[in-house]
Amino acid sequence: MRVALLAHEQFPDRAKTAQGILRYADYDVVAVLDRDTAGDRVAEHVPDVQDAPIVAGMDDVDESIDALVIGIAPIGGGFEESWRPDVRAALERGCDVVSGLHYFLAEDEAFAALADEHGGEIWDVRKPPEDLTVSEGVAADVDAEIVCTVGTDCSVGKMTATMELVEAAREAGHDAAVIPTGQTGIVVEGWGNPVDRVISDFTAGSVEQMIVEKGDEHDLLVVEGQGSIVHPAYSAVTCGILHGAMADRLVLCHEAGRERIHGYESFALQPIPTYVDLYESLAAPVNEAEVVAGMLNTRNVDGDDAAREAVDAFADELGGPATDPIRFDAAEVLEAIV
Amino acid sequence: MRVALLAHEQFPDRAKTAQGILRYADYDVVAVLDRDTAGDRVAEHVPDVQDAPIVAGMDDVDESIDALVIGIAPIGGGFEESWRPDVRAALERGCDVVSGLHYFLAEDEAFAALADEHGGEIWDVRKPPEDLTVSEGVAADVDAEIVCTVGTDCSVGKMTATMELVEAAREAGHDAAVIPTGQTGIVVEGWGNPVDRVISDFTAGSVEQMIVEKGDEHDLLVVEGQGSIVHPAYSAVTCGILHGAMADRLVLCHEAGRERIHGYESFALQPIPTYVDLYESLAAPVNEAEVVAGMLNTRNVDGDDAAREAVDAFADELGGPATDPIRFDAAEVLEAIV
Repeated sequence: MRVALLAHEQFPDRAKTAQGILRYADYDVVAVLDRDTAGDRVAEHVPDVQDAPIVAGMDDVDESIDALVIGIAPIGGGFEESWRPDVRAALERGCDVVSGLHYFLAEDEAFAALADEHGGEIWDVRKPPEDLTVSEGVAADVDAEIVCTVGTDCSVGKMTATMELVEAAREAGHDAAVIPTGQTGIVVEGWGNPVDRVISDFTAGSVEQMIVEKGDEHDLLVVEGQGSIVHPAYSAVTCGILHGAMADRLVLCHEAGRERIHGYESFALQPIPTYVDLYESLAAPVNEAEVVAGMLNTRNVDGDDAAREAVDAFADELGGPATDPIRFDAAEVLEAIV
Repeated sequence: MRVALLAHEQFPDRAKTAQGILRYADYDVVAVLDRDTAGDRVAEHVPDVQDAPIVAGMDDVDESIDALVIGIAPIGGGFEESWRPDVRAALERGCDVVSGLHYFLAEDEAFAALADEHGGEIWDVRKPPEDLTVSEGVAADVDAEIVCTVGTDCSVGKMTATMELVEAAREAGHDAAVIPTGQTGIVVEGWGNPVDRVISDFTAGSVEQMIVEKGDEHDLLVVEGQGSIVHPAYSAVTCGILHGAMADRLVLCHEAGRERIHGYESFALQPIPTYVDLYESLAAPVNEAEVVAGMLNTRNVDGDDAAREAVDAFADELGGPATDPIRFDAAEVLEAIV
């Protein structure tokens, strides 16, 4: 599938979805739309992902594409009216539009009419399916081993860790699959339940449903975690994923140097052993699970030597192997989970 | 407000909402509708609540009423078509209808038309308000002390414990209020957010919003807990309430003799000290909270002596005072929380 990625004024650092797609999705990215960095190439900003030209808008995308993907998720998940000409242009060309915004594009009358007229489809990945329900507590019954990424905070690298673990597992010959729970994971994988948008009673059930659907087709499932069990706002989603997944093993994700909850600076992160104890003791009554490895995001650490030191210190604190899967290699911790 | 309670074929044991209203609500209950026990009186079945005649349907309710309240919540929360004549009759008399079902009566075209025509209102208490959002982590900033009831399982008596604690506190001269989180509590109190129906990302926020709204008007808030932190399906809601409430003190609720998770019999309840540790260690990173007392539901224990023994054993296990607030007196544990 050939796609353009809309990331106006936010590429690359605040375009988490666009980066995830460039790095992991099985899409051929024809162009990134960002009026601020138009004229540059992706490779000048993010060296280790597929390259593409950065252009100012759909008018500069000459090649044919199958879809326009909204590659940014502003706080609040609203739709910026300045993006409307690009979405309209894509729909007028008969393309699909994929969006992880809270604002559902399919419910925008103008977009819906254009999609109808030109035969494109609008996929709002954050709209939960209608058939979700409460968990039955049966995820552990599937044939696959289940691993879940958990975090010390939001935005520490759980989605990245999940993707890298599955890639490493596949390279090592395992039949591994991602269980996507957030908008980037869902866009990358092409399916999944947006767990943070389901009815709260169905949080665990929305994860279980995915595991039951895929669990007998694979040897290993890696469930993309969300938030953190100590997060003042998002811990409910974290807890529902933990219990719904009924994982055998947990991988703790952390960002080097993070000391306060992102956006909630009055709340301190806990010592790493506290996270290990909390996740394990909370999982145990539903399904025994051990934190067997760690993934450390060292993007703010200067130099590989300092990053290696940070990774080693993190490994010591959690009592298992650890790595930065982007800077180093996820294969280092794969042994601990399979 | 004068009300009739619809509880067909389920009064009293499976009519949790009806029982809660009879016991706690500031409503004058004119009649209970139950075609199975019609002709009896409430007092024959539930001795220690307000009495009322039980009748077969709205046609037998001669007195004027302000509202018909659906007093039962079948599994799945659906609407039974056999209740339709009673709801229709109430609306035709210009009465309001109050429902905690998942099926929203206001979206039933026939009911909506009748309400319009005759001037009654339909209040679907389980429909979340539109203005909910994520928690900011500020509940603890209100003037009131915050207490939260937590449980070893669903349906062990958290709503009852909450109501009894607030009543006891008021009798002792405190300005106490309930923060209602479930359909019965919301109907009894006449306001509240149905936390199990909100978007999962807003679970903590929907509790915080209520506390911020009421917290400076009272000395003591008792937050009605939901589910259990070890429940395979509902722990997300429990966790969101725990962190959204930022309680100072927790009251652990349990039912004597309960050994397996209700409806999830393959999952065992944990030893009481495990619950104490789990709730306290999970609360601490957001707001330190101590389990200071317990409420034991002894409805299945024969005789007050055996019940007293069960309460004492429970108190020993959790390391604080305990009572059965219905059989004995909530005042016994009030001292621990104020």
